[in-house]
Amino acid sequence: MAKSTTTLFLLSCSIALVLLNGCMGQGRMREMQGNECQIDRLTALEPTYRIQAEGGLTEVWDTQDQQFQCSGVSVIRRTIEPNGLLLPSFTSGPELIYIEQGNGISGLMIPGCPETFESMSQESWREGMERGMRGGRFQDQHQKIRHLRQGHIFAMPAGVAHWAYNSGNEPLVAVILIDTSNHANQLDKDYPKRFYLAGKPQQEHSRHHHRGGESQRGEHGSDGNVFSGLDTKSVVQSFGVSEDIAEKLQAKQDERGNIVLVQEGLHVIKPPSSRSYDDEREQRHRSPRSNGLEETICSARLSENIDDPSKADVYSPEAGRLTTLNSFNLPILSNLRLSAEKGVLYRNAIMAPHYNLNAHSIIYGVRGRGRIQIVNAQGNSVFDDELRQGQLVVVPQNFAVVKQAGEEGFEWIAFKTCENALFQTLAGRTSAIRAMPVEVISNIYQISREQAYRLKFSRSETTLFRPENQGRQRREMAA
Amino acid sequence: MAKSTTTLFLLSCSIALVLLNGCMGQGRMREMQGNECQIDRLTALEPTYRIQAEGGLTEVWDTQDQQFQCSGVSVIRRTIEPNGLLLPSFTSGPELIYIEQGNGISGLMIPGCPETFESMSQESWREGMERGMRGGRFQDQHQKIRHLRQGHIFAMPAGVAHWAYNSGNEPLVAVILIDTSNHANQLDKDYPKRFYLAGKPQQEHSRHHHRGGESQRGEHGSDGNVFSGLDTKSVVQSFGVSEDIAEKLQAKQDERGNIVLVQEGLHVIKPPSSRSYDDEREQRHRSPRSNGLEETICSARLSENIDDPSKADVYSPEAGRLTTLNSFNLPILSNLRLSAEKGVLYRNAIMAPHYNLNAHSIIYGVRGRGRIQIVNAQGNSVFDDELRQGQLVVVPQNFAVVKQAGEEGFEWIAFKTCENALFQTLAGRTSAIRAMPVEVISNIYQISREQAYRLKFSRSETTLFRPENQGRQRREMAA
Amino acid sequence: MAKSTTTLFLLSCSIALVLLNGCMGQGRMREMQGNECQIDRLTALEPTYRIQAEGGLTEVWDTQDQQFQCSGVSVIRRTIEPNGLLLPSFTSGPELIYIEQGNGISGLMIPGCPETFESMSQESWREGMERGMRGGRFQDQHQKIRHLRQGHIFAMPAGVAHWAYNSGNEPLVAVILIDTSNHANQLDKDYPKRFYLAGKPQQEHSRHHHRGGESQRGEHGSDGNVFSGLDTKSVVQSFGVSEDIAEKLQAKQDERGNIVLVQEGLHVIKPPSSRSYDDEREQRHRSPRSNGLEETICSARLSENIDDPSKADVYSPEAGRLTTLNSFNLPILSNLRLSAEKGVLYRNAIMAPHYNLNAHSIIYGVRGRGRIQIVNAQGNSVFDDELRQGQLVVVPQNFAVVKQAGEEGFEWIAFKTCENALFQTLAGRTSAIRAMPVEVISNIYQISREQAYRLKFSRSETTLFRPENQGRQRREMAA
Repeated sequence: MAKSTTTLFLLSCSIALVLLNGCMGQGRMREMQGNECQIDRLTALEPTYRIQAEGGLTEVWDTQDQQFQCSGVSVIRRTIEPNGLLLPSFTSGPELIYIEQGNGISGLMIPGCPETFESMSQESWREGMERGMRGGRFQDQHQKIRHLRQGHIFAMPAGVAHWAYNSGNEPLVAVILIDTSNHANQLDKDYPKRFYLAGKPQQEHSRHHHRGGESQRGEHGSDGNVFSGLDTKSVVQSFGVSEDIAEKLQAKQDERGNIVLVQEGLHVIKPPSSRSYDDEREQRHRSPRSNGLEETICSARLSENIDDPSKADVYSPEAGRLTTLNSFNLPILSNLRLSAEKGVLYRNAIMAPHYNLNAHSIIYGVRGRGRIQIVNAQGNSVFDDELRQGQLVVVPQNFAVVKQAGEEGFEWIAFKTCENALFQTLAGRTSAIRAMPVEVISNIYQISREQAYRLKFSRSETTLFRPENQGRQRREMAA
Repeated sequence: MAKSTTTLFLLSCSIALVLLNGCMGQGRMREMQGNECQIDRLTALEPTYRIQAEGGLTEVWDTQDQQFQCSGVSVIRRTIEPNGLLLPSFTSGPELIYIEQGNGISGLMIPGCPETFESMSQESWREGMERGMRGGRFQDQHQKIRHLRQGHIFAMPAGVAHWAYNSGNEPLVAVILIDTSNHANQLDKDYPKRFYLAGKPQQEHSRHHHRGGESQRGEHGSDGNVFSGLDTKSVVQSFGVSEDIAEKLQAKQDERGNIVLVQEGLHVIKPPSSRSYDDEREQRHRSPRSNGLEETICSARLSENIDDPSKADVYSPEAGRLTTLNSFNLPILSNLRLSAEKGVLYRNAIMAPHYNLNAHSIIYGVRGRGRIQIVNAQGNSVFDDELRQGQLVVVPQNFAVVKQAGEEGFEWIAFKTCENALFQTLAGRTSAIRAMPVEVISNIYQISREQAYRLKFSRSETTLFRPENQGRQRREMAA
Repeated sequence: MAKSTTTLFLLSCSIALVLLNGCMGQGRMREMQGNECQIDRLTALEPTYRIQAEGGLTEVWDTQDQQFQCSGVSVIRRTIEPNGLLLPSFTSGPELIYIEQGNGISGLMIPGCPETFESMSQESWREGMERGMRGGRFQDQHQKIRHLRQGHIFAMPAGVAHWAYNSGNEPLVAVILIDTSNHANQLDKDYPKRFYLAGKPQQEHSRHHHRGGESQRGEHGSDGNVFSGLDTKSVVQSFGVSEDIAEKLQAKQDERGNIVLVQEGLHVIKPPSSRSYDDEREQRHRSPRSNGLEETICSARLSENIDDPSKADVYSPEAGRLTTLNSFNLPILSNLRLSAEKGVLYRNAIMAPHYNLNAHSIIYGVRGRGRIQIVNAQGNSVFDDELRQGQLVVVPQNFAVVKQAGEEGFEWIAFKTCENALFQTLAGRTSAIRAMPVEVISNIYQISREQAYRLKFSRSETTLFRPENQGRQRREMAA
């Protein structure tokens, strides 16, 4: 009996079943109150609210927009200036972070993980203390520090506090998706809450934000961090520090906002940065720091370069490329139940009409512009517009979509609400049309068998189509 | 540490835990807004809306009825006339399909699966093209074609497009449950949406349907298929076809509805039909087509004959039989998180009072008529009526239910909202009463120990009870 | 391909990933309508409704209170008098039961499990019958009987009927959490329903209850058990008993309420009670009854002593102890998706400020009193009050909390809405502060490096802090 169970179990975990069911197989169910996805018209969205801080800017998309209500996510874009430090914080839903520009470092505070990064000096605690008090160099220990690099997707589990620092010379720009309808979020499903460990930052998502609004530093002074609401005496007792330090933790006088400037730059121990396009796994293999913890969450790979052309899953020298990050190539995504896709379409090239079987797709324009058409269940066009850099549109589950690059080409990042999002193309070599017998095609479209044959076999490309090849194809047909 | 995890893991997957928890163990959580299951009165439901098409009829149960709101499902019944072809479509929730009558074939379009069905000729693509254009026989390739047979349950994963064709001589009648509150459905929870790949069919579930309504072909002309909402030029470019073919895809002139007639019959390559009551697995084992893909979703078994008497799980020559399909005998159901039960009660026989631990049960009368009693948590009768062929009633989770066949016997199919739905009988040899000590029974019911003993042990049958044996039992007691 | 899947699978089940993600990894998603957790102010809650029965009392917390709406649970406290028997019942959500006081026994009715407890006599059924009718001792068989002991947590799967009996000399007091937003509950999410197999008890949770109300026996006569709503003739037929026995099952005249008194005490076969603080597993190993079913749900361990000091996970002779029950030490909890924590703080000791990453925490005061402070995402104090024995407060996911015992010490039980609830301390040796580089701490709190160093390293304890050690710590620092 035990044996048959094991067999059954292995069967149900076979790669093919997972491939099809992915999301379903692992119990994702998004939180929805009914019919937020009754969508008649979509528009390309830009951020509607800005929060300015000392060291950078947070731009917020309106969570109450129907597109976000349907997909159950929130999106913000963060710009951290050079030497800017994002205060440590966490949210109740997982985050998927795309580094649109720049480079930096980030530290996560994961419960139960050891402080594996340490300075080389072998001084004792007491000696370090004394040297510290004399202004010397501290001996320090802290948890792993990770690099943030342009083109990377970074997966942040729900509830894990983290800080980020721009160690480069240009602004660090990140597009951040927070999955509020995720199973991990037992808290507010409408407005994701961010809990800060320091400072007195304003909440990013709030029912009090008005569209087009902007907040300057120092405004909305009622917000605080996790220590602000404690009795100062309790902070004193908990940390064993003096009252003035406790008040610094409570940050009642801090007007710098959620991103602060580090005047002389942040000097922390961090591993040498590998060349761009080396992923962290390779780096780890080369590293002499291997400590036997590689397989734990403490050292789990949380990021992957999705821009690296060598990692493309679909590639056409004439049309572009498509790269997918899912639970198969970034396993932590199975816990987040999110995945991502990076698309690059060359001038006028087309991504085949397709639909997502098991996920919403939140598309953000990274470069250039493209025409996107989206069709709902009634066969009506709900979006036929250009998406430009910095704009965002949601393609709901099962809605048909077709993309065509403009003159300067088009790049996008798509966040998907399933760890193994699947799409089905409707034209091309692996499409639904190819799966049907010619006789069926002929009858459902009321065309002759010859026409059905041509419809079925004319496009030999799979997902990304060369532009303007309609003419050539036709000539081939006629030949 | 790794070792202990594995052990723990195996333990938690042991068959017994799975048996009890089934549904729970795999994370099903149905989407409900609170108390739709505060049920005072149920009625036997019949379809309230009819959609007539060229090749058949679709009858729709009112999704807004409290019974469907509570169970989070929608139900339709489709009648496909001989030579009728149901246009390819998909929905965002999984479907469980019971073939009430007739025979046919169906093709699924699963992303990533190969076109494994092909005609025998070894012509090249170009030769085929040319022969095709000369009106000769086409060389064709397409995905697997599956048989639809009376008495089968067919499991359709969410988002997978499929068509169906009645290849028999009598109408093909199917009762279809769509699980809108399923984890796989991230779209509309109130009205399941159906996306068609062809034609201009009307949506089956809509807030605009009025009870008792009927739609003729050509009405509700605003609906369309996934191509209808695209710019025709985009369709031309995507498929590399002429504009008139693109317009055929968009089906703006198609008034045939969702089921069309194939005048001279559909001639597609399909495997030889096995005798009725041979399941697909057996057929596959005999087939010389075995291609090493048996364990993938592409060739997964999706259907099983639930009417076959030889598969009964409970059988009494005097009372009837009960057959269950769950994730143990049709593994794909673990992905759908649905299961099914077929019941046959002979004249006046009784199915023991019982409740479903972990699922709602949607009961559809297949033949004859039976008296059904349903009791809620307050101990009130919420249903005490006859269920006839073609009628439907929902038994909410945990509600007690008892069924008794009428003079001509009673057959039903029950769809259950858990992949391993469990029920607990309240009378009979495996019942809750048998699990309690006589002392407890005596005290809770305020009866003597002798009476408690009799109550506990009088019925020696398990689930299906002979009719009118009360008298005989009593005599046995007294003997 | 199959091989790589297996590897991937094992990876994703590695203990570390499970440790972090627990709840998330297994698909819990709680049912919430949006923002019930927008909490500005919490209060210590006491039961608001009392239901008096012949053999005991049920006290009900108001399910409509925001704290329960946010956490998606309901709580009751049951006091069963000596010789009191709680009528068999089940609910659609799983229950976690803490035995606050007393001892007793309980029998579960699990479908498919054998009646493994039997009296020693080897009489045949008929002989037993006859002896029974002569008033002799019955030969009886029933399912396993389990002990209820003070300090134990008992896990009750959804839908499993069970009875309980106070076999001791003092009242048996149990605090019972019902997880209404659990994936297993497909029924009413607002008011958990309890289905009784006997008697005519009143529903515990109802929209008709008014705060501060009390119900005497015999009131609210409209409620009944699962048999009450059936036609009496159907009961007669189903059980093969006479009409007067059937009417006893339907309990139309029973005014005893949900807990009845067993006049001369309940005499059932039960295993010898092991010494307190022996867990059931050990007991099973010693037992000669081992029957090869140990690994099934029928014999699964459902309870564990959480009060036993020897099982503490965190222990400080000066501050107190903390004991956790989760799916690693009580595997059935992975099916319930709940866990529990028992805390004991000595006089004036402090539990470090912390937050729960992936769960709500429902705290019930067991002994003494403690000051609890809770802080929301905006940094506002939402609770700063004393929690006394018998009171309850909910700490929502991610909210910061700090506890300090009063003069007589403080003990609590916390129910958590995740099978592997994790918390992150904010002060102490394993805290988030320790995970950050000193440089970061210095910058985010605007303090010098020396101060940051001191803040980071001053507290060397992990979770439970000695009282009044602030002074000593400081002296150490200054030394």
